[in-house]
Amino acid sequence: MKKGRITIKDIAKNLNISASTVSRALNNNPDISLETRRVVQEYANEHKYKPNSLALSLRNSHSNIIGVIVPELANHFFSSVLSGMETIAEDHDYHVIVCQSSEEYTKEIRNVQTLIEARVCGMLISQSKTTIKYDHFQELVDNNIPVVFFDRICTGIDSGKVVVDDYSGTFHAVDYMIQTGCKHIAFFGAAPHLEISKNRKNGYLDALRKHHMPIDEDIIRIADNKQLGYEKAMELLQSDNRPDAFMAMNDYTASGILLAAKTLKLKVPEEVSICGFSNSNISQDTDPMLTTVDQHPQKVGEEAMNLILEKVQNPDSTDKKNKIVKTSLVIRETTRPLVK
Amino acid sequence: MKKGRITIKDIAKNLNISASTVSRALNNNPDISLETRRVVQEYANEHKYKPNSLALSLRNSHSNIIGVIVPELANHFFSSVLSGMETIAEDHDYHVIVCQSSEEYTKEIRNVQTLIEARVCGMLISQSKTTIKYDHFQELVDNNIPVVFFDRICTGIDSGKVVVDDYSGTFHAVDYMIQTGCKHIAFFGAAPHLEISKNRKNGYLDALRKHHMPIDEDIIRIADNKQLGYEKAMELLQSDNRPDAFMAMNDYTASGILLAAKTLKLKVPEEVSICGFSNSNISQDTDPMLTTVDQHPQKVGEEAMNLILEKVQNPDSTDKKNKIVKTSLVIRETTRPLVK
Repeated sequence: MKKGRITIKDIAKNLNISASTVSRALNNNPDISLETRRVVQEYANEHKYKPNSLALSLRNSHSNIIGVIVPELANHFFSSVLSGMETIAEDHDYHVIVCQSSEEYTKEIRNVQTLIEARVCGMLISQSKTTIKYDHFQELVDNNIPVVFFDRICTGIDSGKVVVDDYSGTFHAVDYMIQTGCKHIAFFGAAPHLEISKNRKNGYLDALRKHHMPIDEDIIRIADNKQLGYEKAMELLQSDNRPDAFMAMNDYTASGILLAAKTLKLKVPEEVSICGFSNSNISQDTDPMLTTVDQHPQKVGEEAMNLILEKVQNPDSTDKKNKIVKTSLVIRETTRPLVK
Repeated sequence: MKKGRITIKDIAKNLNISASTVSRALNNNPDISLETRRVVQEYANEHKYKPNSLALSLRNSHSNIIGVIVPELANHFFSSVLSGMETIAEDHDYHVIVCQSSEEYTKEIRNVQTLIEARVCGMLISQSKTTIKYDHFQELVDNNIPVVFFDRICTGIDSGKVVVDDYSGTFHAVDYMIQTGCKHIAFFGAAPHLEISKNRKNGYLDALRKHHMPIDEDIIRIADNKQLGYEKAMELLQSDNRPDAFMAMNDYTASGILLAAKTLKLKVPEEVSICGFSNSNISQDTDPMLTTVDQHPQKVGEEAMNLILEKVQNPDSTDKKNKIVKTSLVIRETTRPLVK
């Protein structure tokens, strides 16, 4: 072994394992067996390995630019998150550049590469709906490039995370609609492998359970945009199994459901209650205006930027902080008043 | 003078003028006197100056990343333009990173610096509403970093441009409302120093002139967002000088006008006609749905990306191409039917 500071490659060579395994073991990644982690960490300690040398060199050679990857910039939630990020970044003299994955896994991989090429000092990522492999994210962690996930987090990666309290946001919204007298509430969700889909659906299910209401799989559908919201609501509202309320994945879906109800001349909220999710700009443009769950996107962005700057500025810290941003129900015109 | 290729600095030193003046003179910038341009160009020719050496070196040391600066990502027009840009970029194996200026001049200057730091090979810029000095743009041109302006163009800079046909978009919309019987049409515009404001207002004025209708300065207002649209419409609709139609700067403003009309229980379009601009996502969420001018943002983005890639790939070319993207009127429910 050459003299001077020991590297991950040296450890890998000497222990006859891959550099990636060494890096993960040093990061205490649960994918690596406890035994391997112990061997690697002991070896690193003995040889005074400094885990942050690469991060430091990256930080110094790089920039004060934070790269952000979002699934879709046209989505009001993400553009509001971005505003929150920029507010905090400016306070600390950091700058923000953005890429969008357009919900495509392969484009997301290119986004990561582009941001590395653009010499960002850290990344904030909300993953695309079609991403099911995480090698491109793991590579960042393995190379000690600070990364924090927000909203659509990647649970498979050992990193900081900022999430919206999707579970209780949906729980309270559905609980509220039940209290206003709704008896047959449909749920329009997104791709089931996403954490936010699972959490929102669980909030919906638990609210039904709390009130001892039956769970009807027939009115639980995948619909996460306006077109799908319209189509699936048209179908259900004309069926024998007609819901009297809808809990939607987002406001776009809710606006599609509203359009279906209006097309079928059903009274909203008397015959059909609708609750969106996001409190996006369109929620006040529909007539009636949408009841929705505010995710406080500014706050999500601020928390995520705070976490990443903390990581960038303290590369030695092994903290993997998670933040949960509370939601609040915004009651407008597509839900009935509370029954006293 | 040292041997080898002559640089802008050498020319500047030998002619005893600034490097920036040399650069502008070589670019035939009209800010530089004809005499100076002639002297510089002759000197450069004599000494076999290669104007593209910096661009070439930037291009080679840089990347295949195109940087985009937009005023506001939450604006549906800009996020759609971006999609058009990305489609073309992907076809040519280029990547896109984005910064937003949030309509702030100082942030726009930082955006330019950040994108240079991120080693982009060219920039696509739509300027902020508050930008009235162009030194930060001129610096790009002086350093031969390819730049193309789109939508909110900077006429003070010698560069490629892609604009929407704002003049005829507004002209045809107002002409249409006059043909439906509207007699007193208000115009809600944006900051008058912006080219798009001037062009849209001129389209409005010329449509009135075509029909020999009087121009009433009292109903020509600055209002370019929902809140201002609502406030100024509330004021005018309750005044003695009540308009029977509104031509709005964008759909957000139009949605504010619509809210005011509904608040005052005025029938839309019978008593008040409203036309937006952009054909953004909200235009189909309002009830009634907005008549609006489609700017074909995808097309704007595609044309802008085509122009910048042409410049990046042919740094020797001195072409300063301009493209005009035609608009089309989308007639929905906030305007009356045509009088036969």
